[in-house]
Amino acid sequence: MRTRAAVAVEAGKPLEVMEVNLEGPKAGEVLVEIKATGICHTDEFTLSGADPEGLFPAILGHEGAGVVLEVGPGVTSLKPGDHVIPLYTPECRQCEYCLSGKTNLCQAIRTTQGKGLMPDGTTRFSMLDGTPILHYMGCSTFSNHTVLPEIALAKVRPDAPFDKICYIGCGVTTGIGAVINTAKVEIGSRAIVFGLGGIGLNVIQGLRLAGADQIVGVDLNPAKVEMAKRFGMTDFVNPRDVSGDMVAHLVELTKGGADYTFDATGNVQVMRTALEAAHKGWGESIIIGVAPAGAEISTRPFQLVTGRVWKGTAFGGAKGRTDVPKIVDWYMDGKIEIDPMITHTLSLDEINKGFDLMHNGESIRAVVVY
Amino acid sequence: MRTRAAVAVEAGKPLEVMEVNLEGPKAGEVLVEIKATGICHTDEFTLSGADPEGLFPAILGHEGAGVVLEVGPGVTSLKPGDHVIPLYTPECRQCEYCLSGKTNLCQAIRTTQGKGLMPDGTTRFSMLDGTPILHYMGCSTFSNHTVLPEIALAKVRPDAPFDKICYIGCGVTTGIGAVINTAKVEIGSRAIVFGLGGIGLNVIQGLRLAGADQIVGVDLNPAKVEMAKRFGMTDFVNPRDVSGDMVAHLVELTKGGADYTFDATGNVQVMRTALEAAHKGWGESIIIGVAPAGAEISTRPFQLVTGRVWKGTAFGGAKGRTDVPKIVDWYMDGKIEIDPMITHTLSLDEINKGFDLMHNGESIRAVVVY
Repeated sequence: MRTRAAVAVEAGKPLEVMEVNLEGPKAGEVLVEIKATGICHTDEFTLSGADPEGLFPAILGHEGAGVVLEVGPGVTSLKPGDHVIPLYTPECRQCEYCLSGKTNLCQAIRTTQGKGLMPDGTTRFSMLDGTPILHYMGCSTFSNHTVLPEIALAKVRPDAPFDKICYIGCGVTTGIGAVINTAKVEIGSRAIVFGLGGIGLNVIQGLRLAGADQIVGVDLNPAKVEMAKRFGMTDFVNPRDVSGDMVAHLVELTKGGADYTFDATGNVQVMRTALEAAHKGWGESIIIGVAPAGAEISTRPFQLVTGRVWKGTAFGGAKGRTDVPKIVDWYMDGKIEIDPMITHTLSLDEINKGFDLMHNGESIRAVVVY
Repeated sequence: MRTRAAVAVEAGKPLEVMEVNLEGPKAGEVLVEIKATGICHTDEFTLSGADPEGLFPAILGHEGAGVVLEVGPGVTSLKPGDHVIPLYTPECRQCEYCLSGKTNLCQAIRTTQGKGLMPDGTTRFSMLDGTPILHYMGCSTFSNHTVLPEIALAKVRPDAPFDKICYIGCGVTTGIGAVINTAKVEIGSRAIVFGLGGIGLNVIQGLRLAGADQIVGVDLNPAKVEMAKRFGMTDFVNPRDVSGDMVAHLVELTKGGADYTFDATGNVQVMRTALEAAHKGWGESIIIGVAPAGAEISTRPFQLVTGRVWKGTAFGGAKGRTDVPKIVDWYMDGKIEIDPMITHTLSLDEINKGFDLMHNGESIRAVVVY
């Protein structure tokens, strides 16, 4: 079949919206009509050329929602008409990682996914002249239609709006999951969130959901304050307004250090501050942000010997097929909010504008609706 | 009263054995006759002058066992004749840290202890000419008699031999505690221990106690192999024999990385290797060793984002008054071994020889018996 997609032809160039060929689903695969997709910093990271593992030409996008159109042989958990959210972290429920009960990092299709290919080592996309186009993060939601493995699709309730729940495919789950799956924040905790962008706001609402007593937000941009407060931030710190040591300031503000700190900036210096602002004896610091290639985190080992714990999280530690439908329910039940974070809605033809909005810090999340 | 002690007169000089004055216990304090004391690397670290917080003159030693001779006003949990192990990490059971249930880092007397003083801000030791001598780590077990706060003494069974259980005052508890309190190793785990000295051997026997399936020891000195095997090591790796990447070698040996890794070297490069040799998705790395002043650990944040956890431990996460008596029981019941690790027994007059044995790598633990 043919479909319309925004193709990343090469690094550093705008996406090109074009007709492309899409082969149907093979065994274990599912054809999905994408109804909406968010534009995430990770797409931008790859498109910019900064991602050393970025491959081109490819169809980016990994934060979508849509409807199953067709299933390949052997697919049992999905049928045409099911509403789904694509999962860049699949959940096969059979590999050593899934069975460990300790991680969400399913390894079933990791190698091929990392190469931009389907599990059989081929791509379903091609240009009209036959040039193969690679998949991206196993999702490629910047195409109106895409093919995914059955294990990389979460089935969700049919009454949830695509243009909102697409955000659960990455940002919402990453932020909330970091709080509830990775940190396992307890009621009454004190927390600090570094970076009040799309991920940080979801960390904040995750903390509110978990019953944190103090939720400190840290950002260089005071324009972020209003929205962050709406999601549960109790205290705001602008590092530009702090004279003296930032760690000491945060430790004092949280009466000894935070029980949990979260880096949603990707800046390795901020990651260090986040660790060191965690409470002596038990504070845990969770790295969510993606650092530039080659960047390293550092600290004195004394910080860990005196009880701080340094962790990270990918996709918020969420097991996609199991956890994503629950988060959709939480949204529909009003336990979490998404609507205010979807600041811009665009057509596929306007997708590059979504990247511009992100660059300029004007959007929290821009969503493309097909 | 007067007692005999080995005094650290200044940094970088041998200890001087001399008669010193010792004041009796004040309120909340206890006079203890030390019967035996181990010589630990931390004593050497301070004596050498490398410890930026080292203060002189002082009576070092923090790994002792002895008998209560006299209690000051208000002491209720101890009486003359009780056998005790001094605790450089006290357990007041009343501070925010003790009550948190999350850490063993009791803060009740931390400030004065760090200054070499008793909780009232004075010292009980002085030279015969009246010059004050500082306490060390709140213990000063290189004196035949010493005074400690009640909260810094673990009461232990009277039939346990002082010249063995003194080692529970630091090395044994640190190594075993890192496994059972900090890492909480489960039966069937795979683990790697870096450094097969006095701490590393105790990590190994802690792992055996916890039911680990694979216990890999890493050390540059092949002379350590026999003893480590005796305590439970299943595989030995000498980095000098590994051509190529050490992390890759260890990951292959442990079939994907270790569930738990422990640094008992104090070398920040080894700490990095230990973290990166932990299993993707869930491996935890525990820093036990004390690094040189100013040294920093580093890694790519990707190591944490993909599920590894970086932790540290002090005194093995043990709450001294609660946990140390249990470990003494384990020794007396044959659940753990100590005797083979006490390689040398010395008199107080020979104490500097104990430091020489340590420098030359000839001892696992040298113990001074009074």
